[in-house]
Amino acid sequence: MSITIKDVAKKTGVSITTVSQILNGKGQRFSEKTREKVWSAAEELNYKANYFAQNMVTKQTQTIGVIIPDITNTFYSDMIKGIEDYLYENGFMVLLCNSTDNEERENLYLNQLVHRSVDGFIIASSTISDEMIFDLLKKNDKPYILLDRKREEHESDNIIVDDTEGGYVATEHLITLGHRNIGVITSSSSDVNVHNRFVGYKKCMEDYGLLMKEEWIMRETLSMSGGYEAAKKLLQADVSAIFATSDQLAIGVYRAASEVGVCIPEQLSLIGYDDIELASYMSPPLTTIHQPIYEIGKLAAETLIHRIMNPEEAAKNHLVKTRLVVRSSTKVL
Amino acid sequence: MSITIKDVAKKTGVSITTVSQILNGKGQRFSEKTREKVWSAAEELNYKANYFAQNMVTKQTQTIGVIIPDITNTFYSDMIKGIEDYLYENGFMVLLCNSTDNEERENLYLNQLVHRSVDGFIIASSTISDEMIFDLLKKNDKPYILLDRKREEHESDNIIVDDTEGGYVATEHLITLGHRNIGVITSSSSDVNVHNRFVGYKKCMEDYGLLMKEEWIMRETLSMSGGYEAAKKLLQADVSAIFATSDQLAIGVYRAASEVGVCIPEQLSLIGYDDIELASYMSPPLTTIHQPIYEIGKLAAETLIHRIMNPEEAAKNHLVKTRLVVRSSTKVL
Repeated sequence: MSITIKDVAKKTGVSITTVSQILNGKGQRFSEKTREKVWSAAEELNYKANYFAQNMVTKQTQTIGVIIPDITNTFYSDMIKGIEDYLYENGFMVLLCNSTDNEERENLYLNQLVHRSVDGFIIASSTISDEMIFDLLKKNDKPYILLDRKREEHESDNIIVDDTEGGYVATEHLITLGHRNIGVITSSSSDVNVHNRFVGYKKCMEDYGLLMKEEWIMRETLSMSGGYEAAKKLLQADVSAIFATSDQLAIGVYRAASEVGVCIPEQLSLIGYDDIELASYMSPPLTTIHQPIYEIGKLAAETLIHRIMNPEEAAKNHLVKTRLVVRSSTKVL
Repeated sequence: MSITIKDVAKKTGVSITTVSQILNGKGQRFSEKTREKVWSAAEELNYKANYFAQNMVTKQTQTIGVIIPDITNTFYSDMIKGIEDYLYENGFMVLLCNSTDNEERENLYLNQLVHRSVDGFIIASSTISDEMIFDLLKKNDKPYILLDRKREEHESDNIIVDDTEGGYVATEHLITLGHRNIGVITSSSSDVNVHNRFVGYKKCMEDYGLLMKEEWIMRETLSMSGGYEAAKKLLQADVSAIFATSDQLAIGVYRAASEVGVCIPEQLSLIGYDDIELASYMSPPLTTIHQPIYEIGKLAAETLIHRIMNPEEAAKNHLVKTRLVVRSSTKVL
């Protein structure tokens, strides 16, 4: 006869509900002693819940599908950490999908996640079409959160970072230091967040009545090598400062500058965006726009779980503020 | 009546097997046209496979549990990318567990993964006890791969990086450049791989008959801030070169050196370990020991899937070689 949850409860002398909650990762409110007792009894008895049979009844998988474009980009791994920390505390697990911005891969993953009956989605991948998300997730009545991607008028919860404002503040910082010829490196793909930073740059330049030459505007993949390639060209243009719309791009600028012997900040001011941990480790430390990446991940997970538990509530927009962090890569002209 | 796979096959005019393989993410060998036809028919009919009912029959979940200590460490995110790329191609998905080197969290995750009937485990977290892995996974007859952690005489497949050799080569490079007073930064936790790099350092120093002062040996957490703290102390000792046993640690050394105005490599030679992408972006670019991190992830996934398909085969050890990559952070004394 197979071992059931009753046997575990009997062995430990606690209620069946307690055992069930602990073994389902929802036992945070019980003492460490109780949890340990239950886990070791379950182990000793070699108790195995029939997970699939359970799920056929409850229709809950305690699993969240997370789709991101690039796990090797520190921005996304910090975000994943925030998501995962919150989900862990609440007894959920993460099915990780690294889409590599490949549309076929994204569609396959999205379908697989629906197929696997995940309880909700966190999507931070910009190339999945709105139609795809809307049709597939709406049709299957799946809650989802969109992060860092184009948002149409979905009725879904959103985490919105004020990137236009952030881009404006970054540019204004350079202008305040006396710079007029300001280059910008933005994304060549359709990330709406990064694009908004660029919109902020343009708005600020216009507000101050400054010229924007075509050769000052670079569009590249959001990576160190993208920043490197863009900077090689910008260093031949007549700019005294560069706004890199992500810190990854900025790291590439350091390399390009160092290769041609251009000193940051003496000969070139550089400001990034994101404030990844590395930013303060660069030489000189990078001035950048801080956004609370880890907290954004946590907030996304929290909002999603709240939505799963309260499907009837109206969708919410959460606005996240950015702030300027002045370090040593920018200087008065 | 609910829609079945037969209806999808009928609508698209392909066989039931073809539909099944494509919808289960195993359709890579079919043309893009066929795949698209099947997906859109399934979508139009709003076909939903009963995943749980399926799994109760096949006992396969097409899911691999991956336990790592820190997703925000580029080393692990590169590894995950390798794992995930291979699994994606083979129709498996990743349940990601970030253990934060917390033993309770690791144990809970391990139990959850068993509970969820994942098909196999990739474990790159050093604090899970051998007993835990052995008891839990053996008892449940679960295939697993151990990476970057202490290995006892398990009968499991292993991916082994020759870290003692790598540590030896790093140290010898510094000695060849004329350095005698060589500091080392190693891990304060129980990572066997990092420890082996330190063993390589000691062996090399002994072979060359060089002194190792206590104050030249730093033990820190494997992070940028760990490297920074260690370097602040080493820069007050009489060393002319530092071997940082991971590139993350080395990045911290750059910061500490820059803060006190010590120039790399003119006043301090620095060698790292791992060769993360960032290494070549540092100023000056970091000399380091290259290990093929992405390929190690891929190999781990490949070995695990092979094991799942061939449970009776004898366990294998895969040895991965490292190599010295000389950039500009080391110099003749």
